[in-house]
Amino acid sequence: MYSIDLNSDMGESFGDYKLGGDEEIIKYVTTANVACGWHAGDPMVMDKVVRMAKERNVMVGAHPGYPDLMGFGRRKMVLSHDEVKNYVRYQIGALAAFTQSYGMKLQHVAPHGAMGNACQYDEDISTAICEAICEYDKDLIVYYCAGAVLGKIAESKGLRIASEIFADRAYMDDLSLVPRKMEGSMITDEEIAIQRCVRMIKEGKVTSINGKELDIKGDTLCVHGDGPKALAFVQRIREKFTEEGIEIKHL
Amino acid sequence: MYSIDLNSDMGESFGDYKLGGDEEIIKYVTTANVACGWHAGDPMVMDKVVRMAKERNVMVGAHPGYPDLMGFGRRKMVLSHDEVKNYVRYQIGALAAFTQSYGMKLQHVAPHGAMGNACQYDEDISTAICEAICEYDKDLIVYYCAGAVLGKIAESKGLRIASEIFADRAYMDDLSLVPRKMEGSMITDEEIAIQRCVRMIKEGKVTSINGKELDIKGDTLCVHGDGPKALAFVQRIREKFTEEGIEIKHL
Amino acid sequence: MYSIDLNSDMGESFGDYKLGGDEEIIKYVTTANVACGWHAGDPMVMDKVVRMAKERNVMVGAHPGYPDLMGFGRRKMVLSHDEVKNYVRYQIGALAAFTQSYGMKLQHVAPHGAMGNACQYDEDISTAICEAICEYDKDLIVYYCAGAVLGKIAESKGLRIASEIFADRAYMDDLSLVPRKMEGSMITDEEIAIQRCVRMIKEGKVTSINGKELDIKGDTLCVHGDGPKALAFVQRIREKFTEEGIEIKHL
Amino acid sequence: MYSIDLNSDMGESFGDYKLGGDEEIIKYVTTANVACGWHAGDPMVMDKVVRMAKERNVMVGAHPGYPDLMGFGRRKMVLSHDEVKNYVRYQIGALAAFTQSYGMKLQHVAPHGAMGNACQYDEDISTAICEAICEYDKDLIVYYCAGAVLGKIAESKGLRIASEIFADRAYMDDLSLVPRKMEGSMITDEEIAIQRCVRMIKEGKVTSINGKELDIKGDTLCVHGDGPKALAFVQRIREKFTEEGIEIKHL
Repeated sequence: MYSIDLNSDMGESFGDYKLGGDEEIIKYVTTANVACGWHAGDPMVMDKVVRMAKERNVMVGAHPGYPDLMGFGRRKMVLSHDEVKNYVRYQIGALAAFTQSYGMKLQHVAPHGAMGNACQYDEDISTAICEAICEYDKDLIVYYCAGAVLGKIAESKGLRIASEIFADRAYMDDLSLVPRKMEGSMITDEEIAIQRCVRMIKEGKVTSINGKELDIKGDTLCVHGDGPKALAFVQRIREKFTEEGIEIKHL
Repeated sequence: MYSIDLNSDMGESFGDYKLGGDEEIIKYVTTANVACGWHAGDPMVMDKVVRMAKERNVMVGAHPGYPDLMGFGRRKMVLSHDEVKNYVRYQIGALAAFTQSYGMKLQHVAPHGAMGNACQYDEDISTAICEAICEYDKDLIVYYCAGAVLGKIAESKGLRIASEIFADRAYMDDLSLVPRKMEGSMITDEEIAIQRCVRMIKEGKVTSINGKELDIKGDTLCVHGDGPKALAFVQRIREKFTEEGIEIKHL
Repeated sequence: MYSIDLNSDMGESFGDYKLGGDEEIIKYVTTANVACGWHAGDPMVMDKVVRMAKERNVMVGAHPGYPDLMGFGRRKMVLSHDEVKNYVRYQIGALAAFTQSYGMKLQHVAPHGAMGNACQYDEDISTAICEAICEYDKDLIVYYCAGAVLGKIAESKGLRIASEIFADRAYMDDLSLVPRKMEGSMITDEEIAIQRCVRMIKEGKVTSINGKELDIKGDTLCVHGDGPKALAFVQRIREKFTEEGIEIKHL
Repeated sequence: MYSIDLNSDMGESFGDYKLGGDEEIIKYVTTANVACGWHAGDPMVMDKVVRMAKERNVMVGAHPGYPDLMGFGRRKMVLSHDEVKNYVRYQIGALAAFTQSYGMKLQHVAPHGAMGNACQYDEDISTAICEAICEYDKDLIVYYCAGAVLGKIAESKGLRIASEIFADRAYMDDLSLVPRKMEGSMITDEEIAIQRCVRMIKEGKVTSINGKELDIKGDTLCVHGDGPKALAFVQRIREKFTEEGIEIKHL
């Protein structure tokens, strides 16, 4: 029997600014990566999304990012090891205040945006993140993009890890995601996208943008909930996975 | 035998901006109220002050404030009940990430600046703060200015409370602090200030700015560490308390 | 011949957060109140909206607000006279950098949100705003809500003023807007709303929520552009005004 | 007759946080680079420093930086061309609001910190900054570190330029500053530092950290005002320059 976790980034609204369709997507996923107020999110938003997750038995993880609300945490910043470590620690704790208040346990940490991208290759940043997690709570699971150095470092520190795959993104030969600006970065045909997911989960294989066959491990699949099309896609994924005998459940 | 906790606000630096003499004052106090990154403080500063507190066995509490770094959290903002509650929750959790990482337990919550001032009379804000604390951790102690409504509300919710007194501030007839802009708000003569403290602790009495005798309860005394004069004053307080048979120890 | 300026708040997006339909509403108005990066807006957004205004010969004014992005500048903050003055000055200059770069002249200043509300009665805040404007550029027009003390103070300082009226809001007996939380605050019937506008412009009269006949002066009418319904309403206003012989033109 | 402009970074305080000794250093310089509220500074601070500059006939320039108050604008951020352009434009305008209010003309633009460092080699960032300046006001002078590509690009766009030299910093063979972390980066012997300045100004020569003789152009000399030692050094520079026949005057 195959199984997969379905995760989505949530809690990315800020004040009067609304982003994403948290109320809808939360019906279809098993796990939420919740922004912690630095690149997105604020305490009112965090409270709301954690409460919704509680009601629907959705697992909650921290989605920490760089201190760059104006750039949505997607712009590279050169931070020191200790800055990354303490920034992650701060954000994990801030979100944990909400899970703890609702009687939930924070499940995981999934770095966001430019911080997440750095975890593909950057051992120092990955180590800083893992140190923050180890010192705070050794039971937290580290979500890392399949192939990212963050996974290896987390594992070497004895942390539990989950390899994240993407339905709608193409892969380079080294398993890094094809940058959004490159042609072919997005898998736009939904049926092809879903077939790729099924193959990644059941066979552990994916074809790179250059046609190379790659080994890939998928513990958790990232989906989006912004707009009716994204929601329809998630519903289609759920149907197809059921047909294929892939159980959707949290880690 | 009489006893008193000595507390000081710490961790109020931000980035390259240094404020206060944390490294010095921490040698003389039993408890630190640590800023949580909203009105002051940042994760690097929080990490440093919590680490110092750990080394010196100083208790750590959260010092949450309004989201107003430019005004140091001292400017009144009109926030909703839920905003206050969630803002406090967020800040408590953010600081708890550091105490937990250092194997310490967060001891208390002491509202800062304009939020603290509002707790003198405002039942709604006081209730919001207490709800945040109750839902997060019922063992946290609530520090409140002697006479503030916050103390009554916290007690009614079953929270532990600590009544805070000030060495260098004059009191109105209702135990509120004389506003800084009013003449006579500061007790500038150090020996008089210390005698007032001794009397508050041993007799539970203080004379208001209008000459009225007031009942006052002092569980924790707030001292400052900015500058050599402030440090000398704290040292003098410690000497005098020893002479007077007042033990200095945390709650 | 009657005439009216049609203004709308614009440039309220921030980073990845989109708010309002600037690209659409700008086709129907004669004047834009542009957020200046404090309660909303950022330099990329300001650049875009000023460029659009230039292309469509729409006048641009500054829409300064409190330093409260999380509250969209709608939460009351207690600031000093000099803080208000300097905060307004800063924001005016920041926006003027864009108008000057595009060869336009900044036309006016219209305080936003809680700052704007304060201008209804608060002489000190109104004076601070007018001082900022006078010292920066005496030719700037001050937009004030009909009846607000800001108008009187601006006029007494020799500034040009424009009295702003609202199509969709009910008025109290003193010409202040009925607070949004009160029943009847919004004029929901579009034809009634438009008839009220026509009467305000042509007769200088409006009926308060209590049925009292009030004198009102309307130099500029505030309209909204968020959503298809709002846009349809503006189009309807334009048609009706043309029928009624009210010319729509900027000040 | 030789002459030199003496400049210093000022207005770097923020809210209750004080940084630098603006009140003292302004007595000894001819030009102030004023922070614009992004990496440092706020409108109250800007108002104060511009007013002091006005009183002492000190020229004022904008010192724009990255949107990173927590890192004091010293951390590299990867921004787009348009982001740099609009961020600089915004900050120039914000400061110009104060100079214009005091009847002064903004004299120059000097990029701060990581943005300034990028101008050493990065043609795209340098071009973005120059475009912002050209479109806003072609009369603004561009301050650039001697040898930086910013100078060449500004000149090619017809902007006036001023080559900045440093009394207390060592140079690499390509005229870039020796990074602060490298040994020998600071010229600690004051008399040697001053002799180097005199030689740069009178002979247009400086010896690199590797002993190589370099051509260097010095239009403006950067000095610091934080602390009594820095002030004494500036006073010594002024004495020595007078002896050497170097007139200290603004551009």
